Amino acid sequence: MIGYAFMGRAHSQAWRTVASAFEVPAVARRVIVGRDEEAVAEAADRLDWEEHATDWREVIAREDIDIVDICTPGFLHAEIAIAALEAGKHVLCEKPLANDTAEAEAMVAAALAAQDRGQIAALGHTYRRVPALRQAQELVASGRLGEIRQVRAAYLQDWLTDENAGMSWRLRKETAGSGALGDIGSHAIDQIQFVTGLSVTAVRGRLATLVTERPGPDGPEAVTVDDAAWATLELDGGAIASVEASRMTTGRKNALSLEVYGTRGALRFDLENLNELWFLDATLPAAEQGFTRVLVTEPEHPYLAAWWPQGHVLGWENAFSNQARDLLVAVRDRETAEAPGYSPDFADGLALQRVLDAIIASDAADGATVTL
Amino acid sequence: MIGYAFMGRAHSQAWRTVASAFEVPAVARRVIVGRDEEAVAEAADRLDWEEHATDWREVIAREDIDIVDICTPGFLHAEIAIAALEAGKHVLCEKPLANDTAEAEAMVAAALAAQDRGQIAALGHTYRRVPALRQAQELVASGRLGEIRQVRAAYLQDWLTDENAGMSWRLRKETAGSGALGDIGSHAIDQIQFVTGLSVTAVRGRLATLVTERPGPDGPEAVTVDDAAWATLELDGGAIASVEASRMTTGRKNALSLEVYGTRGALRFDLENLNELWFLDATLPAAEQGFTRVLVTEPEHPYLAAWWPQGHVLGWENAFSNQARDLLVAVRDRETAEAPGYSPDFADGLALQRVLDAIIASDAADGATVTL
Amino acid sequence: MIGYAFMGRAHSQAWRTVASAFEVPAVARRVIVGRDEEAVAEAADRLDWEEHATDWREVIAREDIDIVDICTPGFLHAEIAIAALEAGKHVLCEKPLANDTAEAEAMVAAALAAQDRGQIAALGHTYRRVPALRQAQELVASGRLGEIRQVRAAYLQDWLTDENAGMSWRLRKETAGSGALGDIGSHAIDQIQFVTGLSVTAVRGRLATLVTERPGPDGPEAVTVDDAAWATLELDGGAIASVEASRMTTGRKNALSLEVYGTRGALRFDLENLNELWFLDATLPAAEQGFTRVLVTEPEHPYLAAWWPQGHVLGWENAFSNQARDLLVAVRDRETAEAPGYSPDFADGLALQRVLDAIIASDAADGATVTL
Amino acid sequence: MIGYAFMGRAHSQAWRTVASAFEVPAVARRVIVGRDEEAVAEAADRLDWEEHATDWREVIAREDIDIVDICTPGFLHAEIAIAALEAGKHVLCEKPLANDTAEAEAMVAAALAAQDRGQIAALGHTYRRVPALRQAQELVASGRLGEIRQVRAAYLQDWLTDENAGMSWRLRKETAGSGALGDIGSHAIDQIQFVTGLSVTAVRGRLATLVTERPGPDGPEAVTVDDAAWATLELDGGAIASVEASRMTTGRKNALSLEVYGTRGALRFDLENLNELWFLDATLPAAEQGFTRVLVTEPEHPYLAAWWPQGHVLGWENAFSNQARDLLVAVRDRETAEAPGYSPDFADGLALQRVLDAIIASDAADGATVTL
Repeated sequence: MIGYAFMGRAHSQAWRTVASAFEVPAVARRVIVGRDEEAVAEAADRLDWEEHATDWREVIAREDIDIVDICTPGFLHAEIAIAALEAGKHVLCEKPLANDTAEAEAMVAAALAAQDRGQIAALGHTYRRVPALRQAQELVASGRLGEIRQVRAAYLQDWLTDENAGMSWRLRKETAGSGALGDIGSHAIDQIQFVTGLSVTAVRGRLATLVTERPGPDGPEAVTVDDAAWATLELDGGAIASVEASRMTTGRKNALSLEVYGTRGALRFDLENLNELWFLDATLPAAEQGFTRVLVTEPEHPYLAAWWPQGHVLGWENAFSNQARDLLVAVRDRETAEAPGYSPDFADGLALQRVLDAIIASDAADGATVTL
Repeated sequence: MIGYAFMGRAHSQAWRTVASAFEVPAVARRVIVGRDEEAVAEAADRLDWEEHATDWREVIAREDIDIVDICTPGFLHAEIAIAALEAGKHVLCEKPLANDTAEAEAMVAAALAAQDRGQIAALGHTYRRVPALRQAQELVASGRLGEIRQVRAAYLQDWLTDENAGMSWRLRKETAGSGALGDIGSHAIDQIQFVTGLSVTAVRGRLATLVTERPGPDGPEAVTVDDAAWATLELDGGAIASVEASRMTTGRKNALSLEVYGTRGALRFDLENLNELWFLDATLPAAEQGFTRVLVTEPEHPYLAAWWPQGHVLGWENAFSNQARDLLVAVRDRETAEAPGYSPDFADGLALQRVLDAIIASDAADGATVTL
Repeated sequence: MIGYAFMGRAHSQAWRTVASAFEVPAVARRVIVGRDEEAVAEAADRLDWEEHATDWREVIAREDIDIVDICTPGFLHAEIAIAALEAGKHVLCEKPLANDTAEAEAMVAAALAAQDRGQIAALGHTYRRVPALRQAQELVASGRLGEIRQVRAAYLQDWLTDENAGMSWRLRKETAGSGALGDIGSHAIDQIQFVTGLSVTAVRGRLATLVTERPGPDGPEAVTVDDAAWATLELDGGAIASVEASRMTTGRKNALSLEVYGTRGALRFDLENLNELWFLDATLPAAEQGFTRVLVTEPEHPYLAAWWPQGHVLGWENAFSNQARDLLVAVRDRETAEAPGYSPDFADGLALQRVLDAIIASDAADGATVTL
Repeated sequence: MIGYAFMGRAHSQAWRTVASAFEVPAVARRVIVGRDEEAVAEAADRLDWEEHATDWREVIAREDIDIVDICTPGFLHAEIAIAALEAGKHVLCEKPLANDTAEAEAMVAAALAAQDRGQIAALGHTYRRVPALRQAQELVASGRLGEIRQVRAAYLQDWLTDENAGMSWRLRKETAGSGALGDIGSHAIDQIQFVTGLSVTAVRGRLATLVTERPGPDGPEAVTVDDAAWATLELDGGAIASVEASRMTTGRKNALSLEVYGTRGALRFDLENLNELWFLDATLPAAEQGFTRVLVTEPEHPYLAAWWPQGHVLGWENAFSNQARDLLVAVRDRETAEAPGYSPDFADGLALQRVLDAIIASDAADGATVTL
């Protein structure tokens, strides 16, 4: 694993936990890598890794490493991932795939070559492993919602509400790429595509910077990324999705919400109550219709048989263990037989990046439709 | 109509409204009766009654009066209701039926005699006309919950939380009969019996006065009724219901809640969101089970075809119009053909009074079971 | 009152009820007007009007008529309203003000002239009289939310979900003007402006017809209005609001939702639970912050002192009585003294119409910003 | 750690995780103990323990063991705990403390002696480490609710709803001690005492077996424990709490709910949404009062600074890590300085056992008050 900050901690938790919950191939936590020797040594100790190292190139060259888990900031993803894939390793790369489309395209090229060699190039859109969202995807895939007509997604946070909160690298275009759109809007769009199984074919978008300058060490500095973003997405087959992302919605802490409306049913989800899926079956008699709060903690639900008894709820971190499980199973299956695809992969990340780019391009073109 | 306070206002609203919502026989609002000439004249004007009067005996003797609606304080119910029934009128009497069991028995006797003459003696347990509770009753009656095993009911208010709130007639046993138990617990128990269709066969009860004295005009006075009450009720067939009533539950405004658990399903209701019924169908696959929020505003729901389009919610007062509708229809049916029973009637009120008495008796006997 | 369909019934309920709830000047329900003699006679009887008539011109000429309440379909609003204002009457006109901007401008001209003569020209955006929304408006006006930065509004219904539901006048541009946008999106936009007190200065919009043809008597016909609409609105001072309206969102019955995010607080509302306002005070300590469910049934809340005790919830129809109260009080105040403005008036309706037109124009221009 | 079933798995998760979340003394997972050699070896591997063993006596004699974590069935608790305490170890014992009061008293005696030697005898009422419940306890302790007057607690599950579910040791008095009361009602009562800081002084109780026989291998067998239990508890100072526990409440999966009503405020909690605490501040103006949904994921909340960013919710299992943290800190503090008490300890477990016994005794005495 390369990187040991917030995401490194979440991934470590997953690697430590996965084998106690799931029947998976053995996994050893070999090396954690970071640039700061002292800090990474402390992290190895705290996060329970066997060794630590400061040179990721040496580590990916090691024979005893099968999987490289990339938790660094985004601008390092491409270089590391491509090298790891070329070194014959399976790779799990945190989202966003890359900082720009050119990098992402190079990564996809490396991934395709590697996949031909039986390697996996996995992207860390971990929310696809939240059981309720997986259950949602299965309901749609099985036709329980009929044909999808309309989708609403939003990701609302509030940690930038305070206009006196200082300038940081996350608020500069050069370092962060984009703001709310790329940071959290990307999750919302990934969920739309994952749950409905439909791809975005065209977009109209709008970005806004609601607090245009913030205090820096030497006085006010311009914020050059978006605080909030809105888009409408056309999906395969004509359904339309709306997306809204904001880091300025006072009081909303981590509210990734998704609503899917089809001809035969509908569903709703909110990440702040991630054990619940609200499902409406429009084929029931009118007098009994309504959104059903399904507490997604039954053994019949995705991933749940491995966890606790019914009603014992999961938290945000469990999705990372579920992701680790899926990756380990995919690695095992790759090695033994005909390989079912692992998703999301680098190509999914590139496709998502193109949707984000299209939204930015639409905003730059005063809201004009951009086709993908 | 006799009485023009809070309940008189709610009943007036119903009589004024019923014919614009429902197909019912014509109803004229002839006379409103009260002891204070000036006040009742003002009420007649404001509440839109044709005439006012101060002597209820004269009014019930009038030929042009078919229905007598009694909205007076409870201690006047027996005298007026018996006289009205003897005068050949249909009667709608607000709850509680009477202040004590002896009075209630006399009223039931008068009602039985009157029913033989084709009259109706109706009791105003209006919550039976809240559409979601009626829908609940129909679900249970149709077997959708299977055999009922357990019920939970509570009626929680908070208007006595302030210990400096002064003494009043409602807090003295002589004038009020009982406290939270009779005032609001009675509603909870009526709903248990109405929705499940089961009768109470035995009880254990507990009463408590949590603020034992309150300021009166000449210093502290003892509160002699209960602030809160708890009971377990055995129902026909062995199900057990719990009931809790309190006027001291800070922040709960009018929270009559009901939960019914059966072998095949369950349901939940809360009067503060009275357009919603939560229904769980335990025969569905486990992965799809959960409480469904049914917004009871569809034309297929009880009473709703008469009101507004779907999703346009009703309020507390509409239940009174629904009650007026049921009474007018029952009156019409009585006059034309074989008469289906109107419920709740005076006998239901007496039966409820006996349950309340049994709870009080149980508390007095240190919680011992009292059989009905 | 002219018109006796759904809206006529709701308005009749209000005129019948207003004086029993509020201290207002006397109001007689003189004449109800409709084109079909038999039907309007029946309506007069059922809705409790003194007389009925078929010629609205005769009625507005009568001396004993002070207020003309227009509940006809939209294409008749302009002619009747202008005539009534010219005849010296106060006018309450249901929304939408008119079918097109030219008509609306003529109505505003007539209203301005009439207002100079002391008349009121009121528009029926009744949701402004829902107590929770009025409470929301007061919280914003008093500065409790600080500076407004972001707003989210949606109005979601599902009565067009069934693609086999037949063609009707509401689905043709010639007769209906627009679809979801004008029908329900207009409510959402009115609420944004009402609650925040901010005006729309520019828009980007998108419309979509998700079911493009529907069965007519002679085979499939093209649907020529929008099933769903999306827009972002720029508000005075730079805040941005998103709006979404749809009649295809399966399972959403009457879900007008509003979320307002400011620098010091936030609030949320949903018309399906119209007695609740969710308020977040961002100046509280972080450990105690959260959305508070205020049950808007206290005497301290707008309009509530006139209704029932705390916790006894109101329904959709009560907002019409509240509106009648405000209009009667405004009429009284006009006649006695310096006149505070009544809002919303015809000018508000015209301004709203211009926002809707701008959204349509933006969609026609491939999403380009349209400035107001 | 002794025992490796459901609870053993949850505790292992905690010991594995605690040091990556919290600043705590180093903890090595030395030995896991079970009777079945093969199974415990497999558990050691899966749950990541250094060694496994089959003889707990040998293990507690080891010098390199500081803490003994007892996750066995209840009937083994006393013997192991007393031996471990006598061997000078700190002990964490899962609830219930013991199967009967005599055992519990012996354990408390051993604990008192051990505590004098600086050892900790901790009881695993883990829900005290759910952050929202800890926050609730702190709000009450700081006086934000004023004087507590009334409490409502329930623990509702549904895994015995099916009357064809077979007989098991949990349904026999000899092996299980009691039914819903001891299994889950005990949690509810512990929470009442923990959150309010008040002790139970007297009880009235009722138990019921709703399905009296269930299929065994040789035909129907009698169920000899309670399916459901109800009690009212008198608390220090006169407040009254109601408790209800059931394993027959269809559709309720793991619904431990708590409501606390005081003179200055109130709070509500439900374990199925364990990241939420609903708090009402009754000192606010009436128009702004209501239950506030506090999402207990802020760094200012108990335990939360160690976990994830705000809005990233925790699951059921995190409470076990929080418990491990508190125990490790208490061990450290014991060793270094004056020792603050660890709670809950064995004496708390005995006190709770006496409340449960009193409820059973009350039921046996037809509901009579039993004083503690």
